[in-house]
Amino acid sequence: VAAGRDFIDAVANSSPARLALIVFSLVILVFTALLSLPAASVSGDVTPLHDAMFTAVSAVCVTGLTVVSTAAYWSVFGQVLILVAIQVGGLGILTMASLLALAVNRRLGVRGKLIAQEGMNTGRLGEVGSLLRIVVATTVLIELALAAVLAPRFMLLGEPPVQAIWHAVFYSISSFNNAGFTPHSDGLVPYENDPWILIPLMLGVFIGSLGFPVIMVLLQSRLKPRRWNLHTKLTLVVSFILLGAGSLLWAAFEWFNQQTIAGMGVGDKILHAVFASVMMRSGGFSLVDMADQDASTLVITDMLMFAGGGSASTAGGIKVTTIAVIFLAIIAEARGDTDVRAFARNIPAGALRVAISVVMLGATMVAVATLALLVITDQTLQPVLFEVISAFATVGLSIGLSPELPPAGKYVLAATMFAGRVGTITLAAALALRQRKPLYHYPEERPIIG
Amino acid sequence: VAAGRDFIDAVANSSPARLALIVFSLVILVFTALLSLPAASVSGDVTPLHDAMFTAVSAVCVTGLTVVSTAAYWSVFGQVLILVAIQVGGLGILTMASLLALAVNRRLGVRGKLIAQEGMNTGRLGEVGSLLRIVVATTVLIELALAAVLAPRFMLLGEPPVQAIWHAVFYSISSFNNAGFTPHSDGLVPYENDPWILIPLMLGVFIGSLGFPVIMVLLQSRLKPRRWNLHTKLTLVVSFILLGAGSLLWAAFEWFNQQTIAGMGVGDKILHAVFASVMMRSGGFSLVDMADQDASTLVITDMLMFAGGGSASTAGGIKVTTIAVIFLAIIAEARGDTDVRAFARNIPAGALRVAISVVMLGATMVAVATLALLVITDQTLQPVLFEVISAFATVGLSIGLSPELPPAGKYVLAATMFAGRVGTITLAAALALRQRKPLYHYPEERPIIG
Ligand SMILES: [K+]
Ligand SMILES: [K+]
Repeated sequence: VAAGRDFIDAVANSSPARLALIVFSLVILVFTALLSLPAASVSGDVTPLHDAMFTAVSAVCVTGLTVVSTAAYWSVFGQVLILVAIQVGGLGILTMASLLALAVNRRLGVRGKLIAQEGMNTGRLGEVGSLLRIVVATTVLIELALAAVLAPRFMLLGEPPVQAIWHAVFYSISSFNNAGFTPHSDGLVPYENDPWILIPLMLGVFIGSLGFPVIMVLLQSRLKPRRWNLHTKLTLVVSFILLGAGSLLWAAFEWFNQQTIAGMGVGDKILHAVFASVMMRSGGFSLVDMADQDASTLVITDMLMFAGGGSASTAGGIKVTTIAVIFLAIIAEARGDTDVRAFARNIPAGALRVAISVVMLGATMVAVATLALLVITDQTLQPVLFEVISAFATVGLSIGLSPELPPAGKYVLAATMFAGRVGTITLAAALALRQRKPLYHYPEERPIIG
Repeated sequence: VAAGRDFIDAVANSSPARLALIVFSLVILVFTALLSLPAASVSGDVTPLHDAMFTAVSAVCVTGLTVVSTAAYWSVFGQVLILVAIQVGGLGILTMASLLALAVNRRLGVRGKLIAQEGMNTGRLGEVGSLLRIVVATTVLIELALAAVLAPRFMLLGEPPVQAIWHAVFYSISSFNNAGFTPHSDGLVPYENDPWILIPLMLGVFIGSLGFPVIMVLLQSRLKPRRWNLHTKLTLVVSFILLGAGSLLWAAFEWFNQQTIAGMGVGDKILHAVFASVMMRSGGFSLVDMADQDASTLVITDMLMFAGGGSASTAGGIKVTTIAVIFLAIIAEARGDTDVRAFARNIPAGALRVAISVVMLGATMVAVATLALLVITDQTLQPVLFEVISAFATVGLSIGLSPELPPAGKYVLAATMFAGRVGTITLAAALALRQRKPLYHYPEERPIIG
């Protein structure tokens, strides 16, 4: 066993990005095989490969896009498989991404305590095991708290205790892992005016979207901002700005939309707007039909889905710190500063180049998948771009395109989910780990820009 | 007169960006007033402000989007006004942008001869006048050459000499200035298989899209690549790559499209693909109805329109050197280099930050205009994004949305053309001119990216 641990640690340290790719692929294949079993579906039939694989990828990558109804198509065994896949995928992402961030920081000798480093490099479990233990303990604790709040509500609404607990556990795991799967056939619509259910879901999704390094710093610093590192401050500030902007714009564009919230009271309208804003950056739960929303709302949702959540979180997208670094660089440029600054800290130029690479890789993935689906189907840009960005950023909000796609289209979306999930974090780590000083410099020459 | 010249030179040197904005606004107002005159329209009516202003902005910003038919709505006087507006706008852009580039290079003490510096700082005309003289001479020479090739063809096709010369002059000015206006009521469709007309148009547009600094270097170096500066090399390489990629993708997506080129021979198909690729980065002429194209073609066109042409050219978009710098930075990052290199030159970090600012400003302009039009109209994303990017990048390809817009929508598109035309070049210059060394540094801290 010890030899196995040493082997895993050695691989994790020599090429953490490759390890992440291999582990994720294997886990997805296992769940694809399990979901294909006749016992996993209500009908007792073998599920076609494209549907089983799409569902496995969607669950392991905590996306929430579906090609069949989770509640109606899958048996209880199938639903348990999906829940386990979400939990394994979520824990895997948190562990992998934290591990990659640790590797980067160790290589670059970065200042500032990133995560619970006391727990690292000690004990028999090895580094990977030690990190995984902390991640699992934190995750289970938060999920239990969420389930404990939700279960009584489902019981009060008349569900038998076992079913209420099952639903509470499903929603707590689905929300904290930003998975967006729902065990009810009509999703959250029956609870659209029930804060007792919506607020815990929002909290679970929002905390989950901050990322493990931020959650650890918040827990260890006992919420004292003076002890927060730069990463935590940037993640929190940008997350709250995007949450506020998303709520305002969603409310502005939908306020008078008869198909969505126009008929509701002001309080419910605001609850819907905040809920939509929390969910569009990765949660994937929805209270209204995406196709009923105004085209302007869909474009805002496209943007916020692409933005995503915190680094080393179960949220996807290009991540809020990536946006922060680019925005700060532009601010610095507008002021004429050559240093990029935030909270009395200097952000190194290397971080900006990694951020640009992540954005461009993300934009390229979205563009390629969009073009592929436009060629495969007869759809127009609006629905295709929405579904593709939802897949890339593992959000799971759907305009209804996924179930209608031919198998080739389902594979394209599945590949987009996988690439979006594993691609950006491994790219960022791989790039940061390769930085070295050049041996010689060419003379400088500046082309005209713009 | 000498005092006036000194005043213009002083303003141009102290705040070239502000001068560009003021001059462009004034020129647009003058042409709006002139186009409003009853004599400018065939009907003899006063043209409504939104249509007159839209046409004036489209002509001065060399865009080519129209809300009324150039051939059918405007009188000969109106058409001459449009042609003069195109020529004034084109010369203005070349002069302004070259002036800004000169100011940046002088301030930054940049290596490498940018443009015909022998002609600068000498004579009584002052710097602005001297530059303008070179720009005018070069432009008129190239336009005369194009007209001399086109006029005989129109005569051979049966047009009377005066009309043939008028059409030849119109197309030569419209193509070299990348304006995309056509004097024929059915555009270029009658000549869609006529290389004698299409090839001069492509050459005019392509040369015009390289930008004045590149044209001057090419003329002075007598096409010897060893004497080219970095800006010229980057512009040419990226322009040809985009030209090739655009042709291939356009051909791939349209090859079997019955509504466009499926029925043609292979030679005509290739001619159409290359023509479309040349025009989509700024020319704005078209041989097929944009609305007949496949959705995937529209997305590729969106991307290449946004990319645009060379700096200090009549082409719009974010410019090819901006793309080059960002792409090279990503390549450097992937290799682990901290220096961004090209053609044995080191591109300074400041150029990368300006490039990112230009891209983000462009994306923001497109996003704001798109959201505004989605709110104003009942359209979906696909046509709105196409028309908005065409306006932002002053391309002029139209999916037919502009004439259908209510006045508010026409003003949004006009503002987008103006901002896209003047915004990116002045922003880039303003940013580059402000760069200074910081007085102190904060300690470095690196957030997790991606
Ligand atoms: K999700
Ligand atoms: K144009």
